Amino acid sequence: MAFTCTIPAVATLQQDDEAIRITRWDFEPGAVTGWHSHGWPYFVVMLVDGTLRIHDGEKATDVPLVQGQAYMRQAGIQHDVMNGSPHPIAFIEIEVKQPAALKQLAA
Amino acid sequence: MAFTCTIPAVATLQQDDEAIRITRWDFEPGAVTGWHSHGWPYFVVMLVDGTLRIHDGEKATDVPLVQGQAYMRQAGIQHDVMNGSPHPIAFIEIEVKQPAALKQLAA
Repeated sequence: MAFTCTIPAVATLQQDDEAIRITRWDFEPGAVTGWHSHGWPYFVVMLVDGTLRIHDGEKATDVPLVQGQAYMRQAGIQHDVMNGSPHPIAFIEIEVKQPAALKQLAA
Repeated sequence: MAFTCTIPAVATLQQDDEAIRITRWDFEPGAVTGWHSHGWPYFVVMLVDGTLRIHDGEKATDVPLVQGQAYMRQAGIQHDVMNGSPHPIAFIEIEVKQPAALKQLAA
């Protein structure tokens, strides 16, 4: 089970190619992404202060974050994400579909 | 040659491990990073609207960006970056040191 709220977060696609996908997510207070699985590793960057309420299928956990705070997660995560803040929030999600497409310099 | 401005942008490290490095960069108007080379592929996410003035060693180019706008660049880029806006700006930089550490799901 995930959240029962039905206010949808709004996804705005910035870039989507073979290597990466960049999406801006906007949440009204209480809005949710809905239950989803991450098929690729991804980064999240908060555009404003806010609390992400993460439901892992069993329990919800509040994660307070500040503007600019960023983190990486590996593929395989399943969850529902709610805006647990009393104000709108937004973050950028960068999914890396092909890590090998991120080219290093020759050693 | 790069910019002659000497106001330094301020780097605040968020995370630095074997796989990735996450840095917040804050720029007063006219502040610069100084000339630098990118040894790893990287993402930039703007936290506010602003204009990045990019010096590639030969010429400067203004790049207007909006809050949340994000992009990826490959390793090997060399440049100097100035805040070309009349107000402070900030962005998050995510450098991927080890793309192979971004784990995909088994096919």
